[in-house]
Amino acid sequence: MHSIQHQQLDCGLCVITESIPGSKTAALNWGVRGGVATNKHDGDSTLLAELVLRGANGMSSKKHNDALESLGIRKQVSCGIEFFRVTSVMLGSHLTQGIPLLGAYLLNPELPEEGLEPCKSLCLQSILSIDDNPSHKASVALNKHHFKKPFGRSSYGEAKEIASATIERVRDVHAKSFVPENSILTIAGDVRHDEVVETVSTLVQSWTGVNASVVSGETPGRGVHWIEQDSSQVHISFAIDGPSAQEKDVLSEAVAISVFGGATSGRLFTQVRQRRSLCYSVSAQFAPSKERSVIRIHAGTTPERAKETIEVCLEQLSILQNGITQDEFARTIQRMKSRTVMHGESTTARASSLWSDQYALGKTRSLADKMREIDGISLENVNNWLKNRDYGKLTLVYVGPSDLNLPTNILHV
Amino acid sequence: MHSIQHQQLDCGLCVITESIPGSKTAALNWGVRGGVATNKHDGDSTLLAELVLRGANGMSSKKHNDALESLGIRKQVSCGIEFFRVTSVMLGSHLTQGIPLLGAYLLNPELPEEGLEPCKSLCLQSILSIDDNPSHKASVALNKHHFKKPFGRSSYGEAKEIASATIERVRDVHAKSFVPENSILTIAGDVRHDEVVETVSTLVQSWTGVNASVVSGETPGRGVHWIEQDSSQVHISFAIDGPSAQEKDVLSEAVAISVFGGATSGRLFTQVRQRRSLCYSVSAQFAPSKERSVIRIHAGTTPERAKETIEVCLEQLSILQNGITQDEFARTIQRMKSRTVMHGESTTARASSLWSDQYALGKTRSLADKMREIDGISLENVNNWLKNRDYGKLTLVYVGPSDLNLPTNILHV
Repeated sequence: MHSIQHQQLDCGLCVITESIPGSKTAALNWGVRGGVATNKHDGDSTLLAELVLRGANGMSSKKHNDALESLGIRKQVSCGIEFFRVTSVMLGSHLTQGIPLLGAYLLNPELPEEGLEPCKSLCLQSILSIDDNPSHKASVALNKHHFKKPFGRSSYGEAKEIASATIERVRDVHAKSFVPENSILTIAGDVRHDEVVETVSTLVQSWTGVNASVVSGETPGRGVHWIEQDSSQVHISFAIDGPSAQEKDVLSEAVAISVFGGATSGRLFTQVRQRRSLCYSVSAQFAPSKERSVIRIHAGTTPERAKETIEVCLEQLSILQNGITQDEFARTIQRMKSRTVMHGESTTARASSLWSDQYALGKTRSLADKMREIDGISLENVNNWLKNRDYGKLTLVYVGPSDLNLPTNILHV
Repeated sequence: MHSIQHQQLDCGLCVITESIPGSKTAALNWGVRGGVATNKHDGDSTLLAELVLRGANGMSSKKHNDALESLGIRKQVSCGIEFFRVTSVMLGSHLTQGIPLLGAYLLNPELPEEGLEPCKSLCLQSILSIDDNPSHKASVALNKHHFKKPFGRSSYGEAKEIASATIERVRDVHAKSFVPENSILTIAGDVRHDEVVETVSTLVQSWTGVNASVVSGETPGRGVHWIEQDSSQVHISFAIDGPSAQEKDVLSEAVAISVFGGATSGRLFTQVRQRRSLCYSVSAQFAPSKERSVIRIHAGTTPERAKETIEVCLEQLSILQNGITQDEFARTIQRMKSRTVMHGESTTARASSLWSDQYALGKTRSLADKMREIDGISLENVNNWLKNRDYGKLTLVYVGPSDLNLPTNILHV
């Protein structure tokens, strides 16, 4: 039913399409390896995510934007840690016109000098806004304390680097990082592969370049970090290393963490929220990736209940190693299958999934492939994995009004 | 291509299905008129949104939840201002089993006495969490100052009412408000109408009751309200009355507000963010409804820029009355058409749209109907509407560290 096609262009760009019969929309996901982790000055790519909006292909910002709008194209430009992306949804009938307009953000932005100061101002305001969102603040700090430099950076960039940026520096980052090597373009929905390849080939005729390698540093100290803020609640975030997307046990981990932290049914929800009323929201997610797979636990609670919340989360994490039950396994498999079908009906979800697969695995998976993988896993697989699972060194960040004076060995699960 | 069917059951419940060929999922939206605005004690329905999760149809909370999970059913129970809803997505093949399990939240919850205190604790924690989200705090206060009582309430409920609730009181609210009159059930996607009607008819055999009327009070004073908080940014929210969903000019207003406040292309975005760098985020949305249609403007900025941000928003609102251009009109129409097609591919969006239409208009619209309406509007319609548009009395709430000392007539647009 679904048909996925790949084309590696000479310049290095990988083009992937999936035609979904019956769909009238097409979702697009185009990334270059130019996120903040690739920056010498942390935040230059954050600035670029603003600056590329200020004109491209010889058009003013207004003209470029109006051209996209007049085709009814939704789009977003976002700077991530490793990649810099353009994502979009449009009617499939507009792809041939839309692709060059969207590609212009990456390939041919004007990067006008007079745009730099306004963009700096917006980026600095965005950094300030983190202070008014303490749970988000905890997440940003969690990455910093958990991942090796420079992969623990946040996509907001560093204020002092942003303030010091010059137009030459930012243009240079664009020229050197926004290159076809490692670049992936996926389109899912109402799409004809040959037309896309033809349109893109014309577009990238003179696009060349390879990525500079990013040297990663040592693993940081991890452990417990308190960020003092006069907030009403205590915002708690844990990070735990997980298996890489390429490892065979990644699906066992996904099943286990779904049992552990699923939003309205997991063990954390039952034990922390429903049984003990410790907090309004608690959940855990597994984010498998190529090199920085991680399980994150988030909870928000009152200062009085914060310590117990942390203890119960860790206790449940420890109990998880004893394995999950047949019932838990069966329900989770059913849930994963339903989710797979649901995602299959969204062109946006499919474009994103193709992108992540190609990046992390070097190949893509159809819905049928994913269903087969889920069918192939057994309770025994999951429980064997959990029995031998080493959580490694954990990171805990909490934002709140007072030091919880946690025992130094609290993270030894 | 799409086929919408209606069935008014004898008890008063209105059942609507839309079969979407090719879809394998079914989204469900079931509401009863039992939101917080219908409560004598503001927050009893908030408590019910927790308490109905603690067992139903004679099953324990765990057994009920496991039954839903084992079918891979996603679900959410939410208390709104006027309605109390269960929303869900599942595989269409599970509808016949899923509907009775989901309906149990509304029709046959256990409401156990021992669940009351834990639910109170969770609801009170949820109220506390508003303090750590100042932009949300501004939105909650905006409704309070803009709408007639009791429709300006928030779905969080009032802490003192929640603290004083007894199990008898909450059970009584359930018995009297969760009734078939005014109740609407919509299902879109892989659905067979006759099967649904049969399943639901059996379920509601002994469901009876009519809603008590809700008497609304006077329009509040509106105007400017400052909420002091030691936040990093100033969080600004405006509310402006809009035409009701039933009025013929509702689409003219939708076009105008899209031109005014569209997320990455509207006049506010261009004038406030891109041209003046006044704030990182600014947008306006029109939420048409049956009786409380409203345009909301949201912006977050630094204390130094807050006053100018407010002034520019109001200035743009005033300029809007001079009309929009042919270009703006054409782009917006194209955008609305694209969005309509995009929503048509999501069973969740369709179930929600059917629900809102039935509630606000007393009838539903297919995608083709919506396209025809968009095709039927002209630039002249929009500009005539704007010329005679009376914004009425506005409300402005801002949360921030200091009083902006705004002139008393600032809201006279």
